[in-house]
Order: sequence, then C-alpha cells, then structure tokens
Amino acid sequence: MSTSGLNMSRRIRRTPYTDRVETVGVRGFSVVNHMLLPKAFERTVEEDFLHLREQVQIWDVSCQRQVEISGPDAAKLVQWMTPRNISRMKLGQCFYLPITDENGGMINDPVLLKLAEEHFWLSIADSDVMLWAKGLALGRGLSVSVDEPDVSPLAVQGPKAADVLATIFGEGIRALGFFKYGFFEFEGTQQVIARTGYSRPGGYEVFLRGSHLGPALWDRIWEAGKPYGISPGCPNVPDRIEAGLLSYGNEFTRENNPLECGMEKYCTLDGSIDYIGRTAIERVAREGVKRQIRGVLFDGGRCPPCGKPWPVLAGDADGPQIGQITSAGWSPRLERNVGLSMIDRGYWEPGQKVTVLCADGVKRRGTVSALPFA
Amino acid sequence: MSTSGLNMSRRIRRTPYTDRVETVGVRGFSVVNHMLLPKAFERTVEEDFLHLREQVQIWDVSCQRQVEISGPDAAKLVQWMTPRNISRMKLGQCFYLPITDENGGMINDPVLLKLAEEHFWLSIADSDVMLWAKGLALGRGLSVSVDEPDVSPLAVQGPKAADVLATIFGEGIRALGFFKYGFFEFEGTQQVIARTGYSRPGGYEVFLRGSHLGPALWDRIWEAGKPYGISPGCPNVPDRIEAGLLSYGNEFTRENNPLECGMEKYCTLDGSIDYIGRTAIERVAREGVKRQIRGVLFDGGRCPPCGKPWPVLAGDADGPQIGQITSAGWSPRLERNVGLSMIDRGYWEPGQKVTVLCADGVKRRGTVSALPFA
Repeated sequence: MSTSGLNMSRRIRRTPYTDRVETVGVRGFSVVNHMLLPKAFERTVEEDFLHLREQVQIWDVSCQRQVEISGPDAAKLVQWMTPRNISRMKLGQCFYLPITDENGGMINDPVLLKLAEEHFWLSIADSDVMLWAKGLALGRGLSVSVDEPDVSPLAVQGPKAADVLATIFGEGIRALGFFKYGFFEFEGTQQVIARTGYSRPGGYEVFLRGSHLGPALWDRIWEAGKPYGISPGCPNVPDRIEAGLLSYGNEFTRENNPLECGMEKYCTLDGSIDYIGRTAIERVAREGVKRQIRGVLFDGGRCPPCGKPWPVLAGDADGPQIGQITSAGWSPRLERNVGLSMIDRGYWEPGQKVTVLCADGVKRRGTVSALPFA
Repeated sequence: MSTSGLNMSRRIRRTPYTDRVETVGVRGFSVVNHMLLPKAFERTVEEDFLHLREQVQIWDVSCQRQVEISGPDAAKLVQWMTPRNISRMKLGQCFYLPITDENGGMINDPVLLKLAEEHFWLSIADSDVMLWAKGLALGRGLSVSVDEPDVSPLAVQGPKAADVLATIFGEGIRALGFFKYGFFEFEGTQQVIARTGYSRPGGYEVFLRGSHLGPALWDRIWEAGKPYGISPGCPNVPDRIEAGLLSYGNEFTRENNPLECGMEKYCTLDGSIDYIGRTAIERVAREGVKRQIRGVLFDGGRCPPCGKPWPVLAGDADGPQIGQITSAGWSPRLERNVGLSMIDRGYWEPGQKVTVLCADGVKRRGTVSALPFA
C-alpha cells in the first residue's frame, strides 16, 4: 500500500518519472492505460489552477501511451480508424481525432503525430488502442507493425513553458506552432517535442523515447524551471473543463458518437473517405444528435469531487433529467463551479437554466454554457 | 477523493456492488479493466488468508468483464484467438486459456464460457480484449457480434461457498463440477453460476446479468452466509500465489509467451489447429523457453508489499540475476514468504537456492518452488 492508498503492483505500471514525483510529494494517483497518473501534490486543486494560469508546471503524463503504426499500410490503417481526413496531413503536424467503432461509438480520442509517411504515433486516452489497431491490421492482413514503443510523454504546461524549454532546447521551441512538433536534441538523442497539452494555458509535451533518460529529463526541466516558479502538477480538472477538454471514460464512452462529443469538425461526412463507423456517423449527421457535450456553470458553493455522475435537471429541481455531470470543479477564475455534461437536444442552448443534484445532497442552480467557457 | 486515496471518477467504473463494499468497510481499491476492484477490508491479508481457507468470502470481481462473442463465426473467432483447442468444448464448460498476439505474446488469460454453439463469454484479466476481438472480426470480415454485456461477476470463495449458495440456489449448486457452469434462477431471471474462482480453496462465481440486480444478489448471499461466517474479501495475494494463479500485468505481459507462463497444456503444438501466434509458439516449443514461471519460498521475516519487481539472484547475494519477484506475500500456512517469478533456464529446478532483494533493503534467502506450492 503506497501513501496514496491505491494498491501498487507491477500491473499498474510506474513511469520513468514516478521516482521523481514521489520525491516532490505526490499525494494521489489515478490509473490510465495500466499506468500511474499523478493526481495531487501539495497544493489544492484551486491553488494549482491559479499557478498553472500564471507560471509553469511539469506533469508526468507517461500514461498517454503511444501506439506506433508503421509500414507500407500505416496511413491506410490510420485513416480506416478515424473519421478525420488525414490525407493532407504533413510531417510535423499533430491531429486531434476521434477513433470510432463500427457503430460510430468512441473508442478513443488521441492526438496523432505523423513522424514519416509510413510512421505514426497515436497518443492515446484510456483504452487499449494498440489491441484495436493490431486486431484490425491482423484481420485485414495489412502490411504494418503496431506496437507500444518506449515513449513516455512529459508535459510542461503554463505561460512560462516556452521560457523553460527554450533554456534547454534552444529558441526553436518558441517557433513551434500550435499542434506542431519538432525534433530536439537531448543527451545525444533526438526527441520529439510538440506544442500540445491538456490545459487551457497550453504548453509542450516531450515525447521522451528511452525510459532510462526520464530522470535526467525531469531534472533538467526542474532546474531550468526554478527561475520561473515551476511546480509539479497534473491535469487540472476545473482548468481542462473551462477549456472544453474532454476525458474519455468520463464525458464520453463507446456509447457516444463523435458528433455528440462536439467533434463535427473532425468528422468527414461527405463520403470522400472511408472509415470504420462511417455509415453510422453519416446517419447520425443526417438525423441530428440527441444530446451533445456542453459546459454547466453552477452556484451553491464549492461542489465535492465528482466521483460518480450527478443528474442535471432542466430548470428547477422538479424538471426532467437532461444530462449528467461527469467532471466538475470549482473555478477560482469564475468563482463558480464548472462541469461537463452531455445535454439533451432541446435543452442545450447556452443560458438554459438547470439544477445539478450533487453527491453531497445539495441541489445547485446553474446554466448551460458553450465550450470552451467564456 | 475517496477514503482509499485513489481519485475517483466515472472513468474508473463503479460496479453494481460498490455501494455494498463501501458499506462493509472497503479500505482500498485497485483498477482492473477500467473498473474498481476492492483490495482490502478490515482484516489484514494474513487474517483474510486464514478466513478464506476455513470459511467463506464474498468478492466483488465485476472487473472480470465479459467479452461476448456471438454469431455464425463466433467459434471460428475464438479459436483463432487462442492456442487452446476448443473444438470439443461442450456447453456448460469453462476453459482457462491463453490469448496470444502474432508473436505469441500474451494478451490475456481469460476463462472461456461456452453458452451456446455460437455464443461465448471470455471472462478477462486486465486488458481490452473486446477491442482486440472486435478489431480481428472487423478486419477479417467475420460474421460475429463482439460486445461487453451487462454482466458483473460476484465470487463466493472458500470451503463453505457451496453451503451458502445451495441455500439460495438449491442443491444443484453442489453437483457442479470444477470449471463447469449451470443456469440458476434468481429473482425471476436465469443466471450463470460457475464453479470457478481466483483462490486455492475455490468456490463459485455468479455471472450476474443485470446490474440492477446487484444489490439484491449481494444481500441474499450476505444473509445466507451469516451462519457460515461470511466476510467481504478480495483475491488474496499469498493464497493465489500458493495456488500458482498468475496475474496478467504482474507475472506476465505481452513480452511473455504462454509456454513461459506454464500454459503448455493449453497450447496446441501439433499443427492440428491454426491460431494467432502459432508459428512463434511452435518455434519456442522447439527451441525451449528461456525462462519459466516458478514459485519462490523465502525467509527473512515478513516481506513488504511488492509494489515493483524485486530482483532474484542465484545463490547468495553475489549471484547473477535469474528472475524478478512480481507478486509476494507472507503465507501464514507456510510461515514463510511466497512469491512468483519468471526464472531463467538452468536455475528453475525446485530447491535452487536464491536471494531476493526486497524493496525494504533486506536480502532474503530462499529456494525455487514448483507451482502450486506444496
């Protein structure tokens, strides 16, 4: 039993940075892709929210495992897996995209990195996309290799992230466009660094190849970050809610299609490409979705952590249920609670009045909000 | 944050029994298949070990999700996924079997239930076998449906398990053979109950279909178990180690083939069936494995929990590393520590002297043991 109370075992994999996050006082973990994700350090979520908006944080997000797809049929397999058209994707680009099953249900929402014409990484949320991709490839007899390489992303997020990383990797860091990546030298190796991340202020992710380099990378960033007030952190719930960044398994599951998730712009609906789930998604597009992801801004004092979904009712507490809050937290910026919920058609216009039935028994009044939050 | 310190969210799914295990004082969880697995109650692991050997326990093992494969090509898909010959499997049987990738690497080690000629459940360990199976089926164009049904196994383990379940389901419970299942009536529904489970004393697993029936099932078993000293429990580490029951992700991963895992008897090596990984596994069988799973019995006082692998050295502390302990605990029966480790060829004979370098800094002396432990 660790200090976190989560039972530790080899099955719940440590990362190249776990020793370091323990040193700097990690107080809780979650498990993503069979791997530890730090969830709390010494500061409160609210303090972390404010720090992240103003300074810089280092996050162990190794649990964003890479699914490496390479070989002559690599692009063919990747395109088959997603409604997003990747035919014009260039080297150096990162594409956020839905991965869907034959019913249009969401299997994951990774960031795709195109490393070469026949070489891709899918930086995944919490499901075994490697098994999905490998099964598809094997079943169809595609000429590809599908594997999980020794790549452990380390995120540097916040407005001073560029300053910190430029100290180590040079001014080229500042030239990286949003959702672009480049190769940068570290200890004699070439490493991928992307301007991506799971926060509203944004920042970078170092896709470190080579676990043995993990402690050295952490230490270099930590040292370079000291003048900028660096602190250990992790994806911050109210921050990512405000940004409209969804979490697979929380806001959406295989029961949801990408149109419900607000991913219309990543769905090819004109028949110009073929992909798994196309027929189902085109049908949903014709008929319209029955519910869609929205923000909810609500009062009633700080809500508790959202450990299980909270019903969202239309209007007052006697209204019909129109959704469920699946992530929530107190926003120090808005000084109100923010949450995410699929909201039924007819009720999803911003400004719709709602009541949230929180687990603490308090009925909190609020309104539907567009995403990201204003 | 729950009492366990594990950060809770919808992504880490609750089970139909989670409310009940909270009521009876759960003190820690693990996460398996994106779902909560209770890992500790009020008793110590040693007390639970002894209780399990003498009385009866109720375990929430809903995380053993079912992958349901049905349709005209169901048997064809299942056979393709495993080296174990299922052609003569009968209705009512449960088969423990390896699932392997194209390199012979282990993807899972489920129990297969044959519910009808074209209808199977795979009761899985911790990896998304549904995505694997669905990908294979879609890629190959098989005529099957692959899904995760609303089935939540509840285990009743220990020598008095039959007495408890016979009270509820009738004397037919006692007639069930080892690794056989039957259909039993519960609240007007037909439910699958198998004589299976992840313990040395053995018992039953109720494969409850219908989450809404979960609390009622728990309560019925709880009441029926009171005269037999029932208590809440969970897979007990030293008990399952003594039984030689492996844990996917701990003792073995995709880096291991089934022959290393001691699953020779579940591998078809005569070419009579075709399956994914056959060529690789036949080659390993010809050449012999380089390492194989063994028990390790070791002294030096109670070892700490095995949160990360401990090196196993041959002979004294200056010997070569020949393995790593991936699960360990104190056996009150043997009054020594028991562990599981892949052990290199040349060192795996029972009686081989070893030194275990535990995380507490203590070098513990021991010997290699056959599995299950005597």
